[in-house]
Amino acid sequence: MASGQDKTHIDYAYELDITVKPDSRVPVFNREFATFTGAGVPLFSLGGGPIRYALAEVLAKFHARRGYYVVETPIIASTELFKVSGHIEFYRNNMYLFDIEGHEFAVKPMNCPYHILLFLNEVAKHRSKLPLPFKVFEFGRVHRYEPSGSIYGLLRVRGFTQDDAHIIVPGGRVIDVVYDVFEEMKLVLERLFKLGVSSETFKVRLSMSDKSLIGKEFMGSKEEWEGAEEALREAASRINEKYGIDIVELEGEAAFYGPKLDFIMMVEESGVSKEWQMGTIQFDFNLPRRFRLYDVVREEFGIEEVYIIHRALLGSIERFLGVYLEHRRGRMPFTLAPIQFAVIAVKTGGEVDREIEDLASSIAKGLLDKGFRVAVKGSSKTGLSSDVRHIESTAKPAVNVFIGAKEVREKVLDVRVFDLESMKRRRLAIAYGDAADAVENLAAVAEELESPVRSLSGQAPRIPADFSFML
Amino acid sequence: MASGQDKTHIDYAYELDITVKPDSRVPVFNREFATFTGAGVPLFSLGGGPIRYALAEVLAKFHARRGYYVVETPIIASTELFKVSGHIEFYRNNMYLFDIEGHEFAVKPMNCPYHILLFLNEVAKHRSKLPLPFKVFEFGRVHRYEPSGSIYGLLRVRGFTQDDAHIIVPGGRVIDVVYDVFEEMKLVLERLFKLGVSSETFKVRLSMSDKSLIGKEFMGSKEEWEGAEEALREAASRINEKYGIDIVELEGEAAFYGPKLDFIMMVEESGVSKEWQMGTIQFDFNLPRRFRLYDVVREEFGIEEVYIIHRALLGSIERFLGVYLEHRRGRMPFTLAPIQFAVIAVKTGGEVDREIEDLASSIAKGLLDKGFRVAVKGSSKTGLSSDVRHIESTAKPAVNVFIGAKEVREKVLDVRVFDLESMKRRRLAIAYGDAADAVENLAAVAEELESPVRSLSGQAPRIPADFSFML
Repeated sequence: MASGQDKTHIDYAYELDITVKPDSRVPVFNREFATFTGAGVPLFSLGGGPIRYALAEVLAKFHARRGYYVVETPIIASTELFKVSGHIEFYRNNMYLFDIEGHEFAVKPMNCPYHILLFLNEVAKHRSKLPLPFKVFEFGRVHRYEPSGSIYGLLRVRGFTQDDAHIIVPGGRVIDVVYDVFEEMKLVLERLFKLGVSSETFKVRLSMSDKSLIGKEFMGSKEEWEGAEEALREAASRINEKYGIDIVELEGEAAFYGPKLDFIMMVEESGVSKEWQMGTIQFDFNLPRRFRLYDVVREEFGIEEVYIIHRALLGSIERFLGVYLEHRRGRMPFTLAPIQFAVIAVKTGGEVDREIEDLASSIAKGLLDKGFRVAVKGSSKTGLSSDVRHIESTAKPAVNVFIGAKEVREKVLDVRVFDLESMKRRRLAIAYGDAADAVENLAAVAEELESPVRSLSGQAPRIPADFSFML
Repeated sequence: MASGQDKTHIDYAYELDITVKPDSRVPVFNREFATFTGAGVPLFSLGGGPIRYALAEVLAKFHARRGYYVVETPIIASTELFKVSGHIEFYRNNMYLFDIEGHEFAVKPMNCPYHILLFLNEVAKHRSKLPLPFKVFEFGRVHRYEPSGSIYGLLRVRGFTQDDAHIIVPGGRVIDVVYDVFEEMKLVLERLFKLGVSSETFKVRLSMSDKSLIGKEFMGSKEEWEGAEEALREAASRINEKYGIDIVELEGEAAFYGPKLDFIMMVEESGVSKEWQMGTIQFDFNLPRRFRLYDVVREEFGIEEVYIIHRALLGSIERFLGVYLEHRRGRMPFTLAPIQFAVIAVKTGGEVDREIEDLASSIAKGLLDKGFRVAVKGSSKTGLSSDVRHIESTAKPAVNVFIGAKEVREKVLDVRVFDLESMKRRRLAIAYGDAADAVENLAAVAEELESPVRSLSGQAPRIPADFSFML
């Protein structure tokens, strides 16, 4: 087994039972697992399922509360759609294409054409009653070609999930909208992932046009570029004023279709400093022309200046999880941890063992009923420290609950809460000495741990599982 | 506009703003919308987004609470996987195939091969610590070829979403497992969709082999068929004993790979009785051979008799919604209704109008903050009945709240709750006469309406939206 230093996110994900890793002990197949699912197509295993559902839930509710409409658009589309969007011209080689009755279809490589279609259809139906800015969010699964030489674990894959949104915004509102996206990213990173966003950990990269090449290498009008770049610069300087985060301006580094802001996290790992691309906000001057959005907004809303913005807070969920696993050495926050509570029955070999075991499994059952992911493990007093070391280096439960003879006698629980980097030990009294009371006490600990997530999304997801087999 | 009698589910879905319908008023495109997204690929619009996220959430949590592991497997796979499963031989023409660097891939037509891979990988890792029966659930998006002549609205599409699960179960537990699936379907239909499951509305169809053709048209051993058919018959007779639901046995009607139970709902619509295919439980003798599951289970668990079961409670979510919309004439239950609360300010033309409007929008804002989907509408006293008629024939909010001069004066709310087929009128007192108090009172009404869903999934989804533009 790889030591802590050598482990990659693939090892951590495998140990947590989040994703599958080719394993020579697989009893049925003697070829590598990847052959079956396909290179670059990661399979999330049992510990990873709840993570995916929890992320979809938290992010959808968070965005809904911020005024985004949450949608789920089709996975496939006629390439007619990508002819309109223009993707077929410059992105064809990165798309997975197939044929239905002589019509060409694609597995969608991005969500934007569908999001714009939704806007146009709503305008067709509700005219100017539709409020602007129009913001639409999707936990969207997209598929793009990656050469087999470049695919790697969760970091570079051929099918991934974006926390993707598009915003159609009149010129006058664009600075606020861009600034709000930064605040949204900050909220999600801090409250869901416990990643601090500050001048020490973050910088903002502003990629702009080369003014002399507008109309040549950079499409769109001088007015569009100036309006968008000014708005991005203004929003970035608000971020700088409020949080002291540095802005780096890169002239000529914009995409051909528009300028962008990227939020970069700077992390130290094993003494090496790395840059980690987080949220991105990108203007697009191509799509509004392609979908005749300028005309529609002028005709229906009487507004001359309007922008389409692509944005993501995490980007690719798969990639984000991969980097996060490596950064946190496999420790997940309570809401996403495959095992939220490990209940460890510490047996003495005496008569009290039965009582210890009963209490441990009743507590686990009670927590499961409340919607938590649990695992029960029996351990001998002598083997305890090696069991704990093993659990801690692999399954990494968010909370460990120890129950031994002392705990049964004194009617307390020995609880260790891992708040990512620190561990807090608590002794919880069980007032009435029964499992139900212990469960209530532990649920209160959980509610405290969930509270930042609740502040994001109104509800903290409870997706229960008995993962005892993982310990 | 089509009259109530002529409307199809497509009309209802369009009026509720759940899905998009080709509309000649679309200002940009003058071709049919379907050209762009592709025939047979329905696009869920803004009202439909929350329905999809809410369904995924409720169903995942419900299954997790019933001991299923919830997973989300890849959308694409190397066809190596479908060679192992055998799909490539008999299902190739129904699959969407493409190439990556000379390797053939498919958009998955079903989830089963991935679910079995997950089982095999867990066994490889955790051996017999993995508990049996092994149950895995996915809100899974699959894609299958349908000829363009047969696609229709949401009822027959080329990409759909299954509430799909697979169960790997030792022979001794199989009757319980099958019976439990029936109970699960009953719970979901009754508590989430308010569809009664009784001897009057349901029947069970048991499709069996022709004994003389086992080993010829029906693959697998005589023992497998007898064991599975006996278990299905036994579970069906438990259902019959408990609920009086009729069992119809159809000899020779099984699939070549195994017998099945189908749950059929019988509905009366416009005087015509229709049959509506709901849950299905299907044995599969092909996949365990293909994936060498019998060997694995024998070697790891020492168990000789084991079955793989496919099951769905609703089947295709798209199709289910289509039939449901038609059956309920567009009325959705509270948890899924695009507009959960419509707040209607009834103006008199007098000075009190300002107060009425303020109260209406404060209440709507308060409900939105609590996670509900709301819409505010101003109406004149004289135009009220036609406005209400219009709202009722299109957006169909789950709860209508009327605020007029009388309500402001008497500090009450006039509330109309649509519990699907019946409408209950309530007058709610606002103790302190302020919006906050009104919001608490209305939230209590909502909690009552959500309570059956909470009993299914622990939490009722709150995915807010301001859909005022729809009224």
